[in-house]
Amino acid sequence: MTNKFIAEMISRITPVDLSWLREAETRQLTLTKPPQSLGRLEEIACRLCAIQESIKPTASPCRIIVFAADHGVCEEGVSAYPGDVTRQMVENFLAGGAAINAIARVTGARLTVVNIGIDCEIDPAADSAKLSNVADATGVTFINAPIDRGTMNFVRSPAMTEEQLAVSIKTGFDVAKEAAREGIKLIGLGEMGIGNTTAASAITAALTGIAVEKVTGRGTGVDDKTYARKITTIKKALERNQPDSNKPLDVLRKVGGFEIAGLCGLCLGAASLRIAIIADGFITTSAAAIAARLCPALTDYLFVAHLSAEPGHQALLELLSLKPLLDLNLRLGEGTGAALAFGIMKAAAATFNEMATFASAGVANRMQS
Amino acid sequence: MTNKFIAEMISRITPVDLSWLREAETRQLTLTKPPQSLGRLEEIACRLCAIQESIKPTASPCRIIVFAADHGVCEEGVSAYPGDVTRQMVENFLAGGAAINAIARVTGARLTVVNIGIDCEIDPAADSAKLSNVADATGVTFINAPIDRGTMNFVRSPAMTEEQLAVSIKTGFDVAKEAAREGIKLIGLGEMGIGNTTAASAITAALTGIAVEKVTGRGTGVDDKTYARKITTIKKALERNQPDSNKPLDVLRKVGGFEIAGLCGLCLGAASLRIAIIADGFITTSAAAIAARLCPALTDYLFVAHLSAEPGHQALLELLSLKPLLDLNLRLGEGTGAALAFGIMKAAAATFNEMATFASAGVANRMQS
Repeated sequence: MTNKFIAEMISRITPVDLSWLREAETRQLTLTKPPQSLGRLEEIACRLCAIQESIKPTASPCRIIVFAADHGVCEEGVSAYPGDVTRQMVENFLAGGAAINAIARVTGARLTVVNIGIDCEIDPAADSAKLSNVADATGVTFINAPIDRGTMNFVRSPAMTEEQLAVSIKTGFDVAKEAAREGIKLIGLGEMGIGNTTAASAITAALTGIAVEKVTGRGTGVDDKTYARKITTIKKALERNQPDSNKPLDVLRKVGGFEIAGLCGLCLGAASLRIAIIADGFITTSAAAIAARLCPALTDYLFVAHLSAEPGHQALLELLSLKPLLDLNLRLGEGTGAALAFGIMKAAAATFNEMATFASAGVANRMQS
Repeated sequence: MTNKFIAEMISRITPVDLSWLREAETRQLTLTKPPQSLGRLEEIACRLCAIQESIKPTASPCRIIVFAADHGVCEEGVSAYPGDVTRQMVENFLAGGAAINAIARVTGARLTVVNIGIDCEIDPAADSAKLSNVADATGVTFINAPIDRGTMNFVRSPAMTEEQLAVSIKTGFDVAKEAAREGIKLIGLGEMGIGNTTAASAITAALTGIAVEKVTGRGTGVDDKTYARKITTIKKALERNQPDSNKPLDVLRKVGGFEIAGLCGLCLGAASLRIAIIADGFITTSAAAIAARLCPALTDYLFVAHLSAEPGHQALLELLSLKPLLDLNLRLGEGTGAALAFGIMKAAAATFNEMATFASAGVANRMQS
C-alpha cells in the first residue's frame, strides 16, 4: 500500500505558480510603506498568495495539529522524563492546561490532538469517549488513532513495520483532508512524545550525514550522563538499522516515530490540498524534511516557526533552505512555536489586505533622484 | 524647567525588586513543561511580574503610541521621501490604512498618534477637530500637541531650544500619565518622521562614539548618492553642535527630534508609573537609550521588539544590554515591530497564568538521575 498511496499523494503536489508571487510582489509596491520595509512579513504574504492562488492571502483559520506517540527507544534511558508523561501531557492538552493551549488561545489557533501511538490502554469505546468529552469542554479536537502502544526500540529492530509506516502516513493524510473540509488555511505542526528528540536526531544524522554528536541536543534537559547515553544509543540505532539516506521512507520507518510519520503524511496531504504548513521546531521539521525529500515541491508550502535550541534543527533548515520566523530559545514542542508564529502570519496577511495604497491614501511615493 | 521636572520624574523610577523575579522563576518551575523550555517567553513573564509586582503578569491592555514630527535636516536631502509624507502618513494612521493599523488590529493593541511637530498648519480649532473625527471612526486616539513645525536643521543650529526640549519631554510624560489612568499595562513605542533615521544615527554616534558610517543606514531606502550625503550631513551636524556624550539631554536637544524627545519622556513617565515599555526599532530605541542614560534603572522596564535592518540599532542594543524579541528584517517604524511583539508578550503572560502545574495536572516531573 505505502508506495502507491504516497506516490499518488505526491503526484498531486505541484510547485507554486511564480506568476502569483510576482503579482503579489507588485501589489506590495503600491502599499503605503517603503519597498520591502515589512521584511519577512512581505515574503510571507506573497508566499500565501502563491499557495492560495489569490491576492487576498489569509492565514486564518489556523489549526495546530499535535501528533502524540511513544518511543520504544525510551527503554535505553534517553530522556529526563518517564514515558508516562506522553499520555499525561495529552490529557493536559485535552483539559486545556498546557503551554500550547494557552498560546493557541492568545493567537486564535484551533487545536487538534491525535493519539497515533501512546503507550497506554485507550479503549476506543470507553476511554476515548471520556477523553473526547474532556476535550469538548475545552474546544480541543481529539482523534484516537493509535497504531500501536509506541514504536519498537530502534536499537534492536526498525522502529516500525512497513504496514505501520503506511498507516501512520495515511492517518496524517486523513487529518489533512479533514482540515481542508473545515476550510483551514494554515496547519501548524505539533508533537508530543517522550524520547522523540532521539528519533529526530537519528533522522537528521541519517538524512544529512552529519555526525550524531552535532545533531543531538539535550531534549527536555538531560544531564551529561544521559546525554552521552543518548548519543551512543543513536549511533547504535544507525549501525543496527543502516537506514538508506536516499530512501527517506526507509529512514522514517527504521529510526522515526509514529508521530513523525503522521506529521510527514500531514505535510504531504496539506500540500496536495494547497494548505500552507508551518513546522514548529526540531521534531516537526524532521517530519517535514522527510516529506520534502519525497517531494521537493513541498517546501513551497512550508514555513518554519522558530529556530529550536536543539542543534539538529539548524542542519535540517539548511537541508530545506528555509529560515525560521522566530528565535525565542524555545525547546518545548507541542506546536508552541507554530502557534506563536501564527500571530506573525496573520499580521503579514492583514498588512497585505488592509493597507491603503499610495494612490488611495494620497501619500507621495519616493522621490526620483 | 527641564532639569527639575526630569530629575523629579527620574527620582520616581526604581529598579525592579529582584525578589519578584525569583518568585516568578520559582513558579515557572512548577508549570507542566521542562525547565526554561519556553525560553524568552519565560524571561518576559518573569520581568512583567517584577515590573507589576504581581504573580499575575499581564501585557494587556497594550497601547502603541506613535509620536510624529518633521526634521529641519530634511532640507539637506537625506531622505527618499518628501517631508510632506510625515503629515500624509499621520492622516493614513488616523484613517486606519497604515501597516501599524493592520498589525494593531490583529494583535489587539490600541493606537494613539501624537502630532508633536509636523511641518503643516494644524489649527487646533478646525483641522485638529477634523482629524480627530477621522480618528474616532477608526478607534485611533489623536493628540495634537505640536512644539513647532519641525525641528531646526541641525547642520546649522541645535535641532531645538532648551524650552522646546523640555516641553517635548513633558508631552511624552503627560501621555504616559494618561495611559496609566486608562490602565494600560504595556506601552509600545512608535514614530513617524521623514528624516528621523538621520537624527537617530546622529544620536547613536554621539552616545556610543562609534563612527558615523557604521551607525548610518539607508532609512526608507536611499540611493548611494543620498546615502553619502546623509553621512556627510550627520558628520557636519556633530562637528557643528559638539553634543556632549556625557549629557544625554544635550545630545537629544542638539541632534534629536521632537518625536524622539517625546518618546524619551514617554519612557521615563511609563517607568515612573511601573508600566512596561516595548521599543520598536532604531528610532524608538534611540529615544529609550537617551532615557536609560538619564536613568539606568529604566532598562528594567524596557523590552525591545525587533532588530531593525538599520545598522545603528545593534550599537544601541549593546549599549542597553538588551536583546530584541524578533528579527524579521523590518525597517518601517510606526511601532509595527512593537505591535507584532505584543502578541509574543501576551503569549508569555498567558502561559505563566494559565498553564497547569505538574501537581494539578497529575503529570510526572523529571526523573532524578
